[in-house]
Amino acid sequence: MSLIQDLPIDSLDSTHAKEWLRAYQRVRAATETICAPLHKEDYMVQSMPDVSPPKWHIAHVSWFFEAFILKLFHPSYQILDPAYDYLFNSYYVTHGTPFARPDRGMISRPTVDEVYRFRAHIDRAIEELLNDLPQEHVQEILRRMELGLHHEQQHQELLFMDIKHILAQNPLCPAYRDDLAPRPVHGVGELGWHAYPAGVRHIGHDEADKGFVYDNEMGRHLQFVEAFQLADRPVTNGEFMEFIQAGGYDKPDYWLSDGWATVKAEGWNSPLYWVKRDGVWHHYTLGGLVPVDMNAPVCHVSFYEADAYAQWAGERLPTEAEWETVARDLLMQGNFAEQDHLQPIAAVPSAEAPRQMFGDVWEWTGSAYRPYPGFRKLPGSLGEYNGKFMSGQMVLRGGCCATPKDHMRATYRNFFPPHARWAFSGFRLAKES
Amino acid sequence: MSLIQDLPIDSLDSTHAKEWLRAYQRVRAATETICAPLHKEDYMVQSMPDVSPPKWHIAHVSWFFEAFILKLFHPSYQILDPAYDYLFNSYYVTHGTPFARPDRGMISRPTVDEVYRFRAHIDRAIEELLNDLPQEHVQEILRRMELGLHHEQQHQELLFMDIKHILAQNPLCPAYRDDLAPRPVHGVGELGWHAYPAGVRHIGHDEADKGFVYDNEMGRHLQFVEAFQLADRPVTNGEFMEFIQAGGYDKPDYWLSDGWATVKAEGWNSPLYWVKRDGVWHHYTLGGLVPVDMNAPVCHVSFYEADAYAQWAGERLPTEAEWETVARDLLMQGNFAEQDHLQPIAAVPSAEAPRQMFGDVWEWTGSAYRPYPGFRKLPGSLGEYNGKFMSGQMVLRGGCCATPKDHMRATYRNFFPPHARWAFSGFRLAKES
Amino acid sequence: MSLIQDLPIDSLDSTHAKEWLRAYQRVRAATETICAPLHKEDYMVQSMPDVSPPKWHIAHVSWFFEAFILKLFHPSYQILDPAYDYLFNSYYVTHGTPFARPDRGMISRPTVDEVYRFRAHIDRAIEELLNDLPQEHVQEILRRMELGLHHEQQHQELLFMDIKHILAQNPLCPAYRDDLAPRPVHGVGELGWHAYPAGVRHIGHDEADKGFVYDNEMGRHLQFVEAFQLADRPVTNGEFMEFIQAGGYDKPDYWLSDGWATVKAEGWNSPLYWVKRDGVWHHYTLGGLVPVDMNAPVCHVSFYEADAYAQWAGERLPTEAEWETVARDLLMQGNFAEQDHLQPIAAVPSAEAPRQMFGDVWEWTGSAYRPYPGFRKLPGSLGEYNGKFMSGQMVLRGGCCATPKDHMRATYRNFFPPHARWAFSGFRLAKES
Amino acid sequence: MSLIQDLPIDSLDSTHAKEWLRAYQRVRAATETICAPLHKEDYMVQSMPDVSPPKWHIAHVSWFFEAFILKLFHPSYQILDPAYDYLFNSYYVTHGTPFARPDRGMISRPTVDEVYRFRAHIDRAIEELLNDLPQEHVQEILRRMELGLHHEQQHQELLFMDIKHILAQNPLCPAYRDDLAPRPVHGVGELGWHAYPAGVRHIGHDEADKGFVYDNEMGRHLQFVEAFQLADRPVTNGEFMEFIQAGGYDKPDYWLSDGWATVKAEGWNSPLYWVKRDGVWHHYTLGGLVPVDMNAPVCHVSFYEADAYAQWAGERLPTEAEWETVARDLLMQGNFAEQDHLQPIAAVPSAEAPRQMFGDVWEWTGSAYRPYPGFRKLPGSLGEYNGKFMSGQMVLRGGCCATPKDHMRATYRNFFPPHARWAFSGFRLAKES
Repeated sequence: MSLIQDLPIDSLDSTHAKEWLRAYQRVRAATETICAPLHKEDYMVQSMPDVSPPKWHIAHVSWFFEAFILKLFHPSYQILDPAYDYLFNSYYVTHGTPFARPDRGMISRPTVDEVYRFRAHIDRAIEELLNDLPQEHVQEILRRMELGLHHEQQHQELLFMDIKHILAQNPLCPAYRDDLAPRPVHGVGELGWHAYPAGVRHIGHDEADKGFVYDNEMGRHLQFVEAFQLADRPVTNGEFMEFIQAGGYDKPDYWLSDGWATVKAEGWNSPLYWVKRDGVWHHYTLGGLVPVDMNAPVCHVSFYEADAYAQWAGERLPTEAEWETVARDLLMQGNFAEQDHLQPIAAVPSAEAPRQMFGDVWEWTGSAYRPYPGFRKLPGSLGEYNGKFMSGQMVLRGGCCATPKDHMRATYRNFFPPHARWAFSGFRLAKES
Repeated sequence: MSLIQDLPIDSLDSTHAKEWLRAYQRVRAATETICAPLHKEDYMVQSMPDVSPPKWHIAHVSWFFEAFILKLFHPSYQILDPAYDYLFNSYYVTHGTPFARPDRGMISRPTVDEVYRFRAHIDRAIEELLNDLPQEHVQEILRRMELGLHHEQQHQELLFMDIKHILAQNPLCPAYRDDLAPRPVHGVGELGWHAYPAGVRHIGHDEADKGFVYDNEMGRHLQFVEAFQLADRPVTNGEFMEFIQAGGYDKPDYWLSDGWATVKAEGWNSPLYWVKRDGVWHHYTLGGLVPVDMNAPVCHVSFYEADAYAQWAGERLPTEAEWETVARDLLMQGNFAEQDHLQPIAAVPSAEAPRQMFGDVWEWTGSAYRPYPGFRKLPGSLGEYNGKFMSGQMVLRGGCCATPKDHMRATYRNFFPPHARWAFSGFRLAKES
Repeated sequence: MSLIQDLPIDSLDSTHAKEWLRAYQRVRAATETICAPLHKEDYMVQSMPDVSPPKWHIAHVSWFFEAFILKLFHPSYQILDPAYDYLFNSYYVTHGTPFARPDRGMISRPTVDEVYRFRAHIDRAIEELLNDLPQEHVQEILRRMELGLHHEQQHQELLFMDIKHILAQNPLCPAYRDDLAPRPVHGVGELGWHAYPAGVRHIGHDEADKGFVYDNEMGRHLQFVEAFQLADRPVTNGEFMEFIQAGGYDKPDYWLSDGWATVKAEGWNSPLYWVKRDGVWHHYTLGGLVPVDMNAPVCHVSFYEADAYAQWAGERLPTEAEWETVARDLLMQGNFAEQDHLQPIAAVPSAEAPRQMFGDVWEWTGSAYRPYPGFRKLPGSLGEYNGKFMSGQMVLRGGCCATPKDHMRATYRNFFPPHARWAFSGFRLAKES
Repeated sequence: MSLIQDLPIDSLDSTHAKEWLRAYQRVRAATETICAPLHKEDYMVQSMPDVSPPKWHIAHVSWFFEAFILKLFHPSYQILDPAYDYLFNSYYVTHGTPFARPDRGMISRPTVDEVYRFRAHIDRAIEELLNDLPQEHVQEILRRMELGLHHEQQHQELLFMDIKHILAQNPLCPAYRDDLAPRPVHGVGELGWHAYPAGVRHIGHDEADKGFVYDNEMGRHLQFVEAFQLADRPVTNGEFMEFIQAGGYDKPDYWLSDGWATVKAEGWNSPLYWVKRDGVWHHYTLGGLVPVDMNAPVCHVSFYEADAYAQWAGERLPTEAEWETVARDLLMQGNFAEQDHLQPIAAVPSAEAPRQMFGDVWEWTGSAYRPYPGFRKLPGSLGEYNGKFMSGQMVLRGGCCATPKDHMRATYRNFFPPHARWAFSGFRLAKES
C-alpha cells in the first residue's frame, strides 16, 4: 500500500484535505512503528557525529511541520516550548543557529515521553489546520505538507541507518528486532550485462509527470549518453569477498588517492559491520550478528570501496545519467522497508532486465553530486534542503531495503560523501559497449 | 549519622559481619538516592570523556564487588552476564582490557532497569557472603568490602559532578532537584590569616589511628615545614570577581605557561558554569541557574585559575603538608553532601580557626601528586587504584559539598589534572610568615 | 617563444632527438631561472603540507627522468645515491613507498648544492641517451621525455605558487623579485555577456590534433550543452570587494555547507594574501605587499568563495564543457609566466570575445573532476599521474599568470580541492540564456 | 678551562668589565663553534614544535642581549631591524607577542648570513657597552650579562639536542661530525649502592656561595630527608635492554597511566633514536648510526620510561632532595660537552662514591618541578625565565654530555615534561635504606 504518491495529481487544493490528513497519519504512524522496539536508552545514543539519537529524529520531523507550516499558517498555534525550535532545527541556518550537531547526544531533556508529547501536540495542530484550511494559503500549505511527509520518510530510513549504527557499537550485538522477514536462500548466477545505445537523453523530472520530487531532481534537461552496458545486478558479497581475498584492501593500485588514505587511516579491511568469528565472516544486521550471505548484494561500502572494486574488476561505476536512462523504463518494485527484511537479499534470477535497480542497496554512481542545469533552490530556509550540499558528495540511486517504497522514483538523487558507509550502500558495474 | 567509620576498629573479623552488611546497605542505598531524581535519558549521557553516564557508575560500583570479592570468595557465585566484566571495568588493565572510556555513552544495553537488576543481584550475593563468611578469607574479604564501600562513596561524589556536567550541557538548564537545602545568606568579612611556626611534622596516615585510608595516604613520614600563614577561609566568588574585573583572564602575567595556553585554547573568561544573563553573572547549580553568591567560595576553577589568582593577589597556594598540618587538629565538620546544599555556601564568621577546611570546596594545593616516601601500591589489580595516576596531577584537600562526610579525613589526598574544572574545586591562599 | 609544442607532430622518432634535447634544455633552464632569486634558506621551507620546499621540486623533477626513463632505457646509467629514489618520489606508490609528504621540509641533506649536482647528473645522462637512442625504445623514450617536460612545466607553476606561499609566511613580506613587469593601469568596464546556443558538442582532446595532452583530456566524447551565456571577463577584485562589503563572508545564505564550515573554521574574510593596512586592502604578491588593483581579476579564492560570490550575484559558475566549447575557438594567448607579471592584470577592454580565457587566473568551473567516458589511465606507475585524484576536487580551466604559455591548451583540466586557495585561482560567471 | 664561573665573586663592578668581555667572547665563540659543521640548509629545519631551527637559536641568544641589555643601557644603540624583536623573542609574552613557536621553521629571511650579521652587530654593541659602562647601571648590566651568558650556554645544549633531532629525521642518517672523541670501551660492573642517613637537610643555593644561579635554585630551605640508598651509577643500555626483552614496553603493569597511554599512542618500543638493523640495536648519535654500547648509560628516555624501569626493577627514582644531598659533596666533574664525546660513555669502575652524578645523562628524579618555599621570580619579563613552567614537568639533575661544564652545579634544576625524550636524559635508581 502506497502512502503518499497515491494522492491525486490535482490534490493541492482544499477538497483533498481529508486525503492529506490520512497520508499524514500513515507516515507519522510508520515512524512510530519503527521506533516501537527501542528502549528509552536507545533513543539517547549518538554513535558518531553523522548519527542522530532517535529521540532527536522523532522531535526534528515534528519540528519541521511546526517551523515551516504551523507557525506560519495555523491561525492560533501555541508553541509547546520555545527552546525546541533551537534544539530540533537540523541545519537550517537561515532559520536560526541550530544546536551543534555532534552534541545531540548530550541532551537528556526533553525526555522521550516529552518528545512524544511534542509530537502529539504537532499532530493535533496539523489535524486542526487541515480541517480548516486558510483558503488563501491552501496550495502553499499542501505543498509544504507534501515536503514534510517526504522529509519524514527520509528520516524513517535515517532511523534504520542510525539505529543499526547505534546498536552495532555495543559489544553485546543486540538485535533491533527478532522477527524480521526471513531472507530467501538461493543463488544469483553469473553476472550478466545489458547493452544500451548512444543518444541524447532526457534527464531529471518531467514536470508532466504527476507526483512529488525534490528540487534537485527538477530542471529536466538533455544529456548525450554514449553507448554503454550495465550489469544485470549489484555486486554480491561473494564477489566482494574475492576482492578481499585478492588483497584488495592491501594494494593501493585500485584506489583513489583519498580512498587509499582513508583505508590506511581507518584500518578498513572489509565492509562496515563485517567481523570474522571463528574464521567465518559475519556481519551485524538489524536482526543481530549473522554469517554473510554470499548471494546478497554487498552493502555498507563506501564510494571508495565501490570504485576500487570496479578498478580491480576492470570495469567502472555507471554515471547517474546511465542509471536513470535504464531505470526510467523499469517497474518501481524491489526489496524496500515494507518487505521487512531490512537487509539486502539475493536477487531472483532473471534475464529480462537489470534486477534490483530499486531497493536492496543504494547504488553508488560515478557522478559527483552537482546541480542540474538551471537548478533553482526553494526560496527561504527550505532552499537549504538540498542545494547547499552540492560539493564533496557522490550520487546514489535506487533506494534500499530501508527506504519506504513510495518515497522512491527513478529520478531520485541521494548523495553521501565518498567515505560514508553507514547508509545501505552497494553498487553495480558498468562498462563501455 | 556516619556510615562506615563508626565501625569498631577491630571490625575485620567475622563477628562483625552484620555491621558490615548494614554499612554496605547504607552506602548502596545512598547511591540509589542520588540517582532517584534522574530520568532514564539522563542515565545515558556522557558529556565529555572524563564524565561517565550515571548508568555506568551504577553498574561499575557493583562490578567492583563482583570482580574483587564475589568471583574470588563467594563459593557459589553465578555471574549474570559475562559481558558486564568487560563493559563495567573502569581502568584495571591488569584485570583485562576495559571498554574504551570515551565510548561509555554509546552503550544503551543493558538498560537502566537491567543495570539495577545487576545491582540487586550483587546485593543478594554480598548478603549471602556476609551471612556465611568463609573463615579462611574473612580479613581479606572485609578489607575489600571496606575498600568497595569507600570506592562507592567516591563514585557518589562523581555522580554529583557528572550529573551536574550532563545537565549543564542542556540549553534548558534543567535543575537536578528543586528541593535542595536553601543556602544561608550572610557576609563573610575580610580575609584573615592564621600563622603557624616552622618545624618537622608528621605527614600521612598514622597507623595507630583507627579507620580506613587509601594506600596513597600511608607511609607516615617526616617533613620539615617552614613557618607559614594560612587564610582563614577559601577565596570567595566576590573576590574572584575582582580578579576577573582586573583583567585576570586577559593578561598572561599571572599564569603558568600551560595555564595561559589553556585559557586561550578554551576561551575561558570565568569559572566553569558561569554565564552572564542581562549583565549579571549567574552560574548553573544542581538547583538550576541562579545568580552567583558573592560570599560563597569560588568553585569549579582549575589549578591554573587558582594559581593565577594567587599570583595576582601576591600570595600562593598552600602545600599539602601545610594544609594537613593545620587540618589535623580541626574538627571534621563542614558543608558535605549530607547538608544537601550540593553547592558551597558562605562561611560563618569566626576568628578561632581556619573555616571551611572540610567540605564546601576541594582546595587546590601547590603540591604535585606524587607518592609518599616508601609508597607501596596494593598487590594485583587493586594496585591500580591510585598509584598509576601519580603524574601530571595536583593534590586537592578537604572534600566538598558533594562528598559524603564520613568519606573524608585530614590525610585524604584527592587529585586532578591542573586544567580540570568539573570537580567542586576552589582554593585557599597561603603566604610566608 | 614556445618550448615544446613547436616540436613537429611526427617528432617521436630518433631523427628528432636533437630537437628533443633542445626542448629539454630550455625547460630545464626555465626551472633554474625561476629559482635563481632564492636563497638556500628559501629552498628549505615547507609552509604547509600541500607546499613542497623548492629544493624538493628541483630534485623531484629530475627524479622523474631518472625513475621513468634513465633507469629503464639508459644502457649504462649510474645512480648517484640510492636514497634519492625514496626521498624524491612524490606519490607514485606503485613505484615504492614515498617519503612522507608533510615531512619534506625536515630533510636538510642532500643540500641545495648536492641537489643541483644530482640535477646536472641527470642532464648529462639524458643528453647521452638522446645522443644515442636505443632504436627499439625510441617511441617510448620520447613519449616519456614529452611527459617529463610537461611534468616539469607543471612544477614550474607549482614553484611560483609555493615560493609565494613560503615568503608570505614571513612577517617581513619579502619580495621574490623586485623587477617584475609593471602592471598596466586601466579600467575594465562593466561586465558583458556572450551567448552560445544549445547543441551536442565534442569535448576532450581530438586525437587528430597534434600536440601533447594528459590522459585526463583524452576520450573525446559528445556532450549536450544547453544554451548559456558566459561573462566576457573574470570577476575583478573591485567586484569581489562589493561582495565582502555586502557581508558575503558573514552570511551563510550564499555558501555551500562545507564552504561555510570552512569560512568559520579558518576565519576567512577575504581572499588569501589579502591584508588591511591603515584601512586599505593590500595583498602579498611575488613583488611584495601592494594595494589591491580593483581592475585585476580576483585571485587566490577557493571554489567555495567563487560559488558563494556567484550565488550572491544571482549567477553561477560555468561547467567545464561550456568553458571548453567557448575556449576551443579562441587564440591561445594571455598573461602567462612569460609576461613576467606573475600576478593577474586588468583586462584590455574589448567586445569581440570573452577576454582572459587563457592566463591571468585559473577559472573554477562548476564541474567536479571526474573521468571522461572511456578514461584509461596509463599503465604502470605513470597511471598514477592523474586518475587517482578524481574524487573530491573541482576542475579549473585556462591557466594563469604563473603557467608557462606552451603548457596550456583549451582541453587542459586542472583540479584542486574546493577549499584550496594557494593556486592563482579566480573565476568567471555564467548564466542561462 | 672554565668560562664564566672563574669570574671573581665581586666581579659585578666596572673594574672587571674586561673580564666580562672576555667571558662574553668565549661563550659567544663556543656557540659558533657548535654550528660550524652545519650547512645553511641544516640551520632551517624545525623537526618538531619543541625544536627550534639552529638559525633561530643563533638569532635568539643575540636578541636576548639586545632586548634586556642594549636597548635599555647602551646610550646610542641602533637596532638593525625592528622585526627581529618579534621574530626572535622566544616566550617572553610580557615583552610582546612572540612569533608562533611551531612556525619558526617557516622563516627563511633573515638568511643565515644576515643572522650572523645581526650577531656581529650585537657583539660590537656589547663590546662598546662594556668598554664604557654607564656607572649608575653597572651592577644591573653585569647581572644581566651574567644571565645572558648562562642563557646562551643553555642554548648551546639545546643546539646539540636540536641538531641531533633534526639530522635524525633524515633517512640518510648524516653525522653531525665525523671526528668526535672516541668512546672508551670497558665494563661497568654490577650495580652498587651507597647508603645515606635520615636528617634535616639544606636544599637550594646557599647565598654565601659565590657563583651564578637561576631564580629557581634560590630560597635555600630545610627538608627532612628519610634514610635512603642511591645507585652508584645510572642504569645502562644493557640493563635497559633486559627491560625491553622482559616485555617492558608491552605490559601496562609497570607504567603510570599517562605513560602507558603515551607508549600506545606513539608506538614506543625502545628509547628514542634506537633502531634495529639486521637484528642488532643501533642508535643514532651525533657521530652517525652506531651499535648501542651496553655499558654506557641509557639515554633519550622519558620520565615515563625511567619510572617504568624502576617499577619493573622493584626500585624507584630518587627525589631531587636526595640527589642534591649526595651531589653537594662531590667534585663537579664528568663527561660534559668539553669532552667532545657528545654521547654518554661507560662509567669508570670505582667504589668510592656514586659515579657519573655530573655529566653523561641528565637524571630524571621523582620530583615534580615546583617552586621552592619563598620562590620569587625576577621582576619584569625576565621573571618569565623559569617560574611560568612550574607545572606538568619533572626535575632532572646533573647535566649531560652536551652541557658546558661550567654551566653545571649541584643545585641546578632542569625540567622537562614527563614524555620528553630529545634531551640527553637517563636515570639512576634509589631505594629505602
